[in-house]
Amino acid sequence: MSTDSQFAIGVDLGGTNMRIAAVESTGKQLELITTSTEVKRGRDYVVGDMCDAIRALRKKFEGKYRFAGTGIGVPGIIDMETGTVHKSPNLPDWTHYPVREEIQRRLESQVILENDANVAALGEKWMGAARDVDSMCMFTLGTGVGSGLVLGGKIWHGMMGMAGECGHITVFPDGVPCGCGNRGCVEQYASATAVKRMAIEAIATGRAPELARAMSENPEFSSKVVFQYATQGDAAAKKIFDVVGRALGVALADMINALNLPMYVIGGGVASGWEAFAPAMFDELHKRSYVYAATAPDDRLPTRKHTLITRALLGSDAGLIGAARLALA
Amino acid sequence: MSTDSQFAIGVDLGGTNMRIAAVESTGKQLELITTSTEVKRGRDYVVGDMCDAIRALRKKFEGKYRFAGTGIGVPGIIDMETGTVHKSPNLPDWTHYPVREEIQRRLESQVILENDANVAALGEKWMGAARDVDSMCMFTLGTGVGSGLVLGGKIWHGMMGMAGECGHITVFPDGVPCGCGNRGCVEQYASATAVKRMAIEAIATGRAPELARAMSENPEFSSKVVFQYATQGDAAAKKIFDVVGRALGVALADMINALNLPMYVIGGGVASGWEAFAPAMFDELHKRSYVYAATAPDDRLPTRKHTLITRALLGSDAGLIGAARLALA
Repeated sequence: MSTDSQFAIGVDLGGTNMRIAAVESTGKQLELITTSTEVKRGRDYVVGDMCDAIRALRKKFEGKYRFAGTGIGVPGIIDMETGTVHKSPNLPDWTHYPVREEIQRRLESQVILENDANVAALGEKWMGAARDVDSMCMFTLGTGVGSGLVLGGKIWHGMMGMAGECGHITVFPDGVPCGCGNRGCVEQYASATAVKRMAIEAIATGRAPELARAMSENPEFSSKVVFQYATQGDAAAKKIFDVVGRALGVALADMINALNLPMYVIGGGVASGWEAFAPAMFDELHKRSYVYAATAPDDRLPTRKHTLITRALLGSDAGLIGAARLALA
Repeated sequence: MSTDSQFAIGVDLGGTNMRIAAVESTGKQLELITTSTEVKRGRDYVVGDMCDAIRALRKKFEGKYRFAGTGIGVPGIIDMETGTVHKSPNLPDWTHYPVREEIQRRLESQVILENDANVAALGEKWMGAARDVDSMCMFTLGTGVGSGLVLGGKIWHGMMGMAGECGHITVFPDGVPCGCGNRGCVEQYASATAVKRMAIEAIATGRAPELARAMSENPEFSSKVVFQYATQGDAAAKKIFDVVGRALGVALADMINALNLPMYVIGGGVASGWEAFAPAMFDELHKRSYVYAATAPDDRLPTRKHTLITRALLGSDAGLIGAARLALA
């Protein structure tokens, strides 16, 4: 092992779980610590837990590799200049708290904070689906729809770290109200929450008997169950994933027309429903984006550069890997 | 005058007129030649005319300033690598023709081709409304809706020069069919063509008596006439500009959420209808983009950075100035 080899620590701070990994500069994950995020005990407790894990990993690998620093993916809008959290629904007491400064003080080493969807995008760019392209956009279909943009190899923050909020692109202007204040955001049609809501709506109309039975039998009724029914051919479930695909298609078409990137990556839990939503998504893309139509991989001109829409490869590790990458850059 | 001072030639190649200017490295326009674009006589004739004007300006100013090169704004999709035009409705015989090479051969000097909406954006960035920001997006509301993105001081081309097609952002997914293949593009609601079409539609319903009279009396009935009626309080005309504002609001909200840029500039002929469409546009922005709502200039927190939506300053010179800038970079 070369003594020049570096490692960094990446943190994926979720509202339920916190995962802390030591990652080598090659992208190899050396060790992972998973612990629950004790949000109810307050931010000091959570930061304490996180710092303990970071210290333990640092101590373990510092003899073998040079320590480069720590990157932390946080679910919320980060003010990059001040290292504070603007808004974080899952970590309510983190708002306007000098997170970065506090963690740096405790660790006595450099810390970089970043929005969780942005680090997931950076992770997929570095070691995942987008490792061969320089610029990409990632949509993470989870409880909400997060998104991150990597332009020319770097996370695009915009003026104050609020860029990449593609989950709030308007797809149906008179559509479902969104927590952000808008109506018809892609998040309201392509998140796990949206899939479940659409299933409940379908059940309420009486036109989804199979889903109704599934919901009454299964207290854990979720977007995954709806996907299972869709793959088994249930018409109501298929219709829901058709909406997921159409909404994603409209939002992706907008981004393709605006940015002409070589790759758009779809990750998060709902991405496992790819087979169910992809046909409608690609149908919309062909109709709605002439930039896509001119560059789609099924184009017969082999010399052309292509616009690729693809599934994420790193699963829930994307954020960890991307967070570590921040410190290795 | 310093001998180090440079000048470049900027060309705005329109389907009707061609304008060629010598521009100093300070941005000062030294001289302008305007001539008609004789599209019917074919590309060789048009290129010949253009080269004559470029040579004349070069000869005139080369004694005083160092010549930096020529930038040309072309209405169409440019392949930046090969210097060819992919698609140009106004210059049909320019497609797949080695424009750049041919002009360079004739002029024996460096030529940079660029999409016309992109050079307009660069012009406004350099010398116009966006001169104090590093990144911006411009919408040019003309016959169509062109758009250009400047990120970190440079035109963002994307993978192959097709970026910045924000005129084809979907604002009403089941809306008016667009020439691009999509439905409900912002171009179908915010271009001069769209304003005229909406006026004709309103007249056809019988609910726009004033506009009907204006159209029958005025063979030059255009978006400008509709705007004049809107400013005079005509309800039907006001309603049309309300749609312009709503459509722009949806498209801008998408771009603000995605990119968090400090400035979005609205130019082109329809931008003169600002007073008529701006209220609806800002209303949509506040509702549809929480990034905008958090950064709008009417925010009470004076220390915050703001998202500015503003009118273009250079009028029809933006393209010329931006084209010259290409060669001065």
